[in-house]
Amino acid sequence: MKFTLKAKDPNSKARLGEIETAHGNIQTPVFMPVGTAGSVKAVHQSELLNDVKAQIILGNTYHLYLRPGLDIIQKAGGLHKFNSWDKPLLTDSGGFQVYSLTEVRKIKEEGVTFQSHIDGSRHLFTPERVMDIQRIIGADIIMAFDECTPYPCDYSYARKSMDMTHRWLKRCCERFDETEPLYGYSQSLFPIVQGSVYKDLRERSAEKIASYNREGNAIGGLSVGEPAEEMYAMTEIVCNILPESKPRYLMGVGTPVNLLENIALGIDMFDCVMPTRNARNGMLFTKEGIINIKNKKWEDDFSPIDESSDLFSDRLYSKAYLRHLIRSKEILGAQIASLHNLHFYLWLMEEARNHIADGTFYNWKNKMTKVLDQKI
Amino acid sequence: MKFTLKAKDPNSKARLGEIETAHGNIQTPVFMPVGTAGSVKAVHQSELLNDVKAQIILGNTYHLYLRPGLDIIQKAGGLHKFNSWDKPLLTDSGGFQVYSLTEVRKIKEEGVTFQSHIDGSRHLFTPERVMDIQRIIGADIIMAFDECTPYPCDYSYARKSMDMTHRWLKRCCERFDETEPLYGYSQSLFPIVQGSVYKDLRERSAEKIASYNREGNAIGGLSVGEPAEEMYAMTEIVCNILPESKPRYLMGVGTPVNLLENIALGIDMFDCVMPTRNARNGMLFTKEGIINIKNKKWEDDFSPIDESSDLFSDRLYSKAYLRHLIRSKEILGAQIASLHNLHFYLWLMEEARNHIADGTFYNWKNKMTKVLDQKI
Ligand SMILES: [Zn+2]
Ligand SMILES: [Zn+2]
Repeated sequence: MKFTLKAKDPNSKARLGEIETAHGNIQTPVFMPVGTAGSVKAVHQSELLNDVKAQIILGNTYHLYLRPGLDIIQKAGGLHKFNSWDKPLLTDSGGFQVYSLTEVRKIKEEGVTFQSHIDGSRHLFTPERVMDIQRIIGADIIMAFDECTPYPCDYSYARKSMDMTHRWLKRCCERFDETEPLYGYSQSLFPIVQGSVYKDLRERSAEKIASYNREGNAIGGLSVGEPAEEMYAMTEIVCNILPESKPRYLMGVGTPVNLLENIALGIDMFDCVMPTRNARNGMLFTKEGIINIKNKKWEDDFSPIDESSDLFSDRLYSKAYLRHLIRSKEILGAQIASLHNLHFYLWLMEEARNHIADGTFYNWKNKMTKVLDQKI
Repeated sequence: MKFTLKAKDPNSKARLGEIETAHGNIQTPVFMPVGTAGSVKAVHQSELLNDVKAQIILGNTYHLYLRPGLDIIQKAGGLHKFNSWDKPLLTDSGGFQVYSLTEVRKIKEEGVTFQSHIDGSRHLFTPERVMDIQRIIGADIIMAFDECTPYPCDYSYARKSMDMTHRWLKRCCERFDETEPLYGYSQSLFPIVQGSVYKDLRERSAEKIASYNREGNAIGGLSVGEPAEEMYAMTEIVCNILPESKPRYLMGVGTPVNLLENIALGIDMFDCVMPTRNARNGMLFTKEGIINIKNKKWEDDFSPIDESSDLFSDRLYSKAYLRHLIRSKEILGAQIASLHNLHFYLWLMEEARNHIADGTFYNWKNKMTKVLDQKI
């Protein structure tokens, strides 16, 4: 993996960059659609590539480990082969799902024991095991095993957890560095800054993470319920410490406004289930603000979902029709809305890159963040 | 509407024909995908057109009447405009759903009162009302309001029900003929033969229906649980009576084998939810037989769903991946399997047409029906 910093915004910390991977290059800032179980819900891989124009998608280690399971993925020759996505892939470490999806879990120094949400079977994730699992899944970028603290989280728990995450990182790096990729292309390991919403912990964690000098760095434990201002404060502190020469990935964020504000603070990579999950409930993100397509006001609006869009489905279908599909729980409604939101997120990132390239990002960002949050 | 008989198979009653409608021509025999609530579940209109190559799709009057409702459809300018399907459309009369979906319903000479399965509201469908509703929906081909008898059904009920269906047909035709289409193109009304599995009733009904001399004729009340042999026996009797110069539509049928056998008896048009509904449960229809993709045998079969197919998704995704998606209840699984089955049904009809055209239908049909039913 190689990261090239191509431009910097004169009025903010926003950066334009390029990540080179074995499966293709990624222009940053980038939004990565989430393909939980090896599929971005309700969207074909061909649509991701040609219509959404996704550059990289995510897989969730926890889900893929449980189903289809490592045996199948390895026999397929890795996740790229298994799900026919021949572009860059990133996997998380499984930690987040272990904490949020499983009812029975026990965190110890060794690792985390948990019960599958599918069949109740017991499993142990250790830093070493999670590296082995991500070697088998075979994503281009893989994540260190961390503890993602909830919000709110008291200072003493946040500190202890962060220290354990740091000790786990050492074990992750050792295991990663003593193993080889399985499918003939290299993988990159990103460590994760934790520390909840505590300034001094975030500083300590960012320094620790930076000291490992990996090919990229991530910020975790945000977008877990804290006010946006606290998120931005933490991002700012951490970005001032993480090296400029490495991509910075803010995990699990967020709304269109969150993306633009964090780009302004120096973030290069984002992922979030929001565009697809909210789509399935009828929430559409647009240039003019947020549409709840279930509202009665769209009932007889027969204009296209977005006339100015270059996405086929935005022009083909009307708002009234999409409203009908979502209300009727028709699968096509989830397809149309998911395509729309992902296409919008990817469009917004492309706009951001263009504005960074020509030095106009800051003013554009301030204008956009005023409207993107509005309910229309 | 105009129907042209273009060729007849020398060794069976199979026919090749063409139906001309205001929204385009239909080559028969034809299979019509079912778009219950104005959407063929899990398939984009653009995919129906370009990938499945559907020539005409169905809408269900009962569902569309309840949601989005007639007011919205009329404001949109009819269903073609509402769901952006600019090709031929057919609507059923709503009768079948009234009998099968609603718990509380009362059949009287005047019509049927029923409660909505959505909100329990009470409604009355009469032959006249159902004509008015289908004028508003605006399909190119609309169906008479009938009673679809269950199976088994005793003779005396079947006879009484058939007689009422015939009296309702008179009212349907009168209302249809004294009203005008609402959107500037003509609509055609098809009456429906009933009579359960009783030879004499089917004969009487076919004669009655033929006497109305409408632009096409339909056979209802089959594929409701009776053995296939009883279905074919009824189709044969009825096709011998219905005029050769009009298209014959067998409603709600069926499996690939059912389609081929009924084509051999003189049927031109079919619809069925089977390709899409069974797809969502992981049943794939193929040239070699029926696949239950959930079976363990497909777990590590990384070959394409169908290498020889001209459908993008059949070549892009593997059987193992589709199995994983269906087991994980991922929406993409329903999308891939529905596309596959519809594409297969439409391909099978095209093959049938080619074999009728070159006079080889009968032998081809006998060869195909031996394999299409096999579980593989
Ligand atoms: Zn999120
Ligand atoms: Zn059927």
